[in-house]
Amino acid sequence: MTNQAIIDLVAICAKKGIENAILSPGSRCAPLTLAFARHPDIHARTVSDERSAAFIALGMAQKLNQPVVLVCTSGSAALNYYPAIAEAFFQEVPLLILTADRPPEWIDQWDGQTIYQSEVYGKHVKKSFVFPDSLQTADQLWYAHRIVNEAINLAKSGPAGPVHINIPLREPFYPKKGEQFIPSSSLHIVHPHLASKQLSHDSLEQLKAKLAQVRRLLIIPGQQKPNPKIKKLLKQLALQKKVVTVTDTISNLSFEESIAFHDHWLGNETVSQELGPDLVLTFGKSLISKPLKQFLRKHAQSHWHIQAQEGTRDPFQHLTRHLDCDPQYFLEWLVEHLSLMEEGYFSKWQALEARIKEKLPEIIQNVEFGEYQALQQLIRHIPENSIIHLANSMPVRYVNFLGKINQEISCNRGTSGIDGTNSTAVGCAFTTKDPVTIITGDMAFFYDRNAFWHNYSLANLRIILLNNHAGGIFRLIDGPKDQPELKEFFETRQPLTAQFLASEFGFGYSLATNSADLQSQIQELFTPGMKAKILEIRSESEKNAEIIALVKEKIKLLLEE
Amino acid sequence: MTNQAIIDLVAICAKKGIENAILSPGSRCAPLTLAFARHPDIHARTVSDERSAAFIALGMAQKLNQPVVLVCTSGSAALNYYPAIAEAFFQEVPLLILTADRPPEWIDQWDGQTIYQSEVYGKHVKKSFVFPDSLQTADQLWYAHRIVNEAINLAKSGPAGPVHINIPLREPFYPKKGEQFIPSSSLHIVHPHLASKQLSHDSLEQLKAKLAQVRRLLIIPGQQKPNPKIKKLLKQLALQKKVVTVTDTISNLSFEESIAFHDHWLGNETVSQELGPDLVLTFGKSLISKPLKQFLRKHAQSHWHIQAQEGTRDPFQHLTRHLDCDPQYFLEWLVEHLSLMEEGYFSKWQALEARIKEKLPEIIQNVEFGEYQALQQLIRHIPENSIIHLANSMPVRYVNFLGKINQEISCNRGTSGIDGTNSTAVGCAFTTKDPVTIITGDMAFFYDRNAFWHNYSLANLRIILLNNHAGGIFRLIDGPKDQPELKEFFETRQPLTAQFLASEFGFGYSLATNSADLQSQIQELFTPGMKAKILEIRSESEKNAEIIALVKEKIKLLLEE
Repeated sequence: MTNQAIIDLVAICAKKGIENAILSPGSRCAPLTLAFARHPDIHARTVSDERSAAFIALGMAQKLNQPVVLVCTSGSAALNYYPAIAEAFFQEVPLLILTADRPPEWIDQWDGQTIYQSEVYGKHVKKSFVFPDSLQTADQLWYAHRIVNEAINLAKSGPAGPVHINIPLREPFYPKKGEQFIPSSSLHIVHPHLASKQLSHDSLEQLKAKLAQVRRLLIIPGQQKPNPKIKKLLKQLALQKKVVTVTDTISNLSFEESIAFHDHWLGNETVSQELGPDLVLTFGKSLISKPLKQFLRKHAQSHWHIQAQEGTRDPFQHLTRHLDCDPQYFLEWLVEHLSLMEEGYFSKWQALEARIKEKLPEIIQNVEFGEYQALQQLIRHIPENSIIHLANSMPVRYVNFLGKINQEISCNRGTSGIDGTNSTAVGCAFTTKDPVTIITGDMAFFYDRNAFWHNYSLANLRIILLNNHAGGIFRLIDGPKDQPELKEFFETRQPLTAQFLASEFGFGYSLATNSADLQSQIQELFTPGMKAKILEIRSESEKNAEIIALVKEKIKLLLEE
Repeated sequence: MTNQAIIDLVAICAKKGIENAILSPGSRCAPLTLAFARHPDIHARTVSDERSAAFIALGMAQKLNQPVVLVCTSGSAALNYYPAIAEAFFQEVPLLILTADRPPEWIDQWDGQTIYQSEVYGKHVKKSFVFPDSLQTADQLWYAHRIVNEAINLAKSGPAGPVHINIPLREPFYPKKGEQFIPSSSLHIVHPHLASKQLSHDSLEQLKAKLAQVRRLLIIPGQQKPNPKIKKLLKQLALQKKVVTVTDTISNLSFEESIAFHDHWLGNETVSQELGPDLVLTFGKSLISKPLKQFLRKHAQSHWHIQAQEGTRDPFQHLTRHLDCDPQYFLEWLVEHLSLMEEGYFSKWQALEARIKEKLPEIIQNVEFGEYQALQQLIRHIPENSIIHLANSMPVRYVNFLGKINQEISCNRGTSGIDGTNSTAVGCAFTTKDPVTIITGDMAFFYDRNAFWHNYSLANLRIILLNNHAGGIFRLIDGPKDQPELKEFFETRQPLTAQFLASEFGFGYSLATNSADLQSQIQELFTPGMKAKILEIRSESEKNAEIIALVKEKIKLLLEE
């Protein structure tokens, strides 16, 4: 006899618009596996390493803006999901995590693959449910339906995020031959109608009064997905020369007048002390630029953060107002209510931006070949329609140094781990025929190599691997570079190249160790083909650190001119 | 200024006998990293993938019987530890987990690598501490010392297990040049003196009275480390022909008169119905033999479990007494207090054992070459002084089919996951110059390939890889093998071979696809050398399933003779 609640669960998922599930092998989860694999409207794939499986689901959900289902068997499988779940929680990506479990009577009885799964993701899921373990009464089936509805609605609403249903299952797990999976005739569906949050008249009046005193306004969008409407509003404000907008690459909001080379001068106190704003307005999630954060901590007078949810986020230590509303709504209001700004504030920022924009390419071209130059050369060859997945640590920083970029940028800045970059990009590649480009370092790349261990096509995946055989970032921060333990315990030197991995997984592979190599290989890298391709750029960690220091020095001279 | 509490933490670890730490790279954890790396009495190694790092620590602690320290940076690093921590919890292996964290004021402020680390391991650690984040008063230093003492004492005592200290750290993380790490002049040390648990006179009298009525006594040790004293007591009982002892391979307790081929006949109802015991006495952890468990559920009259800790473990559903004492102590008492047993019970088991022992090798030799035959041939060539690490799923089952083995057997049966076998064995290899042998399948092997991603010698590691390009176990259970989804969603066919991996990590590699190959390669495999070696045995999943069925069939005929 098949498990009706499980068949209904999958049918409700489909009715509520879920189209993708990433399954991992197991027997306890077989009722779920079969019901997902057999549902005509859900595309189920299987990935054996649950750590990768979960990041792949994250990458899909990120791109699709709808929950992706994860299904695993009982025991430590569920724990391997955890890094991606925490990332999804802080990055606000919807996931529906279904973990098969032993029924309660068999917990803690030395049975295999049995841990304490209930609530196992702690504070890193929006909610955790326990699915009914028997269907003796009609109420229990209604309860099962209700849980699935609530879980999916929650995953998508407000700040989206991961939701967990732990599902105790008893044998038999498998249907008899020829047995059909037929959902209940009446599936209980709860449709959510979501509000958009707007501020009260009184609030707006107060804000208007405060704004009237502001002469220097900075808008700084944090990490978010591309949003053309918001971009248009920001551009409108910029064209009035009233507002300076600073766009980190991960904001996906840069436009012609936005500031994007700020990393190069905000750390320079002589320059930045003249740029302090009266008010900083932020929305979206985190920033990548450390000089920007430090500048705001030091020089911002006050800070308003727009966030249509609870929680006091005060990363610059000057938060005075939390606007609990939708950013687009507030920016529309702002366009209408901005008063006169200080003359020259806007143009001061623009002048700095223009100067770096003009000189940086030349500076980088004139230093030795390394990661910096390689990325500068490569980045303009990435196809316009490619999403770019940046690994944490150096790749996301380098790309931020290089200014504006047209492509959508994705980076796991929820927890900022190096653990799931490949898998997240693989998930993204599953959702599109467009190319997906990873820019990664060797540590992140090899950490997550099981991203490629499955049987699905990765023909549209391109990997730019900055291999300096170490965690190069540790050479750039002041502390570790002076310690005798630098190489073994911080950089953690590692000798691998991607060549064997490429052969193993049937990926294209080429290696560049200098500018000429690179030039000759760029075109081939982005030529469409039947398989994923890796371009490995080999450089030396010490040299890269020297180059960054040299570029910094040259910019310093430039700013002092 | 260095962090005195951290320097003292490491000094207390050393004073309390901790000799090994596995670190993973990070900046937040730098004070810990440096203090461990610089301590003369602690051997610190660094492993970049925290999932592997934690299993490596588990493998070391398992072998050394003393806590091994884990150190990671803040954020998802801590989550990657979790699978190994759950394994350590259920397998009762001592670990001291030190996770660096942001200080409380920077949690939830969009800062990178920040999650909710406090209590993050839920019920899967013995206790979770939060280290003081400042040292304003003498009380705080005393508190820091006390936490470290309690954590280490807890990790080692009663049922050993993982203990977590979350450590909020503020900058500066790095000492100035030439700065010395000097522990406080008075380090607070709490020495534990542990009791051995004995039963009361009244209890023993009751048990004696009950035992007087028992005519058929089965002793079944669950998974444990080798214990010569207990083995001697069991042998003593067996020589009196009073007690039947059934030893799964993972019990590490087999001796000449113990039963080890039970997997082959206990599933046969005609045979097993005559073997039901009046009383089953167990100690140690789980069993691997499913027929044994099912036999006990069906035929045992009553069950006493010896376990010097709380918790009702009743896996055979006949538990009547929980003896809260030390197994060795109780067995010593039992030797003196056993009354007359049923004539013939002991010899019935012995006769079955002798029959299988005689015929099984011949049966396996006469079937086609595959995993079964390969293992039978290989197993006698594994050096006597090698610890054997078995992956879950098929390897541990095959080895149990093959009867007694002299070497120490290790298998992660705490959670029975396939996720950390390689790493656990690598950890073991770090603790000894003796050979360490892994017997694994392709799913477990590739899942945990980052076990080898570090810079430490694995010259004493030997890997026997049963590569059937799938999770072969799913072909052996009744349900999945009849489903059309078998290959994609259960077996999850995978095409990899270990050849590329071997080249990548500089391991020796050879391939056997038939008996002659195998014979010619066995000797080379176990010849000592400068590098790890892999022997890949390639076979077909379908064929292996047929072979197992055929062997089963032949044994059935044998039993019916």
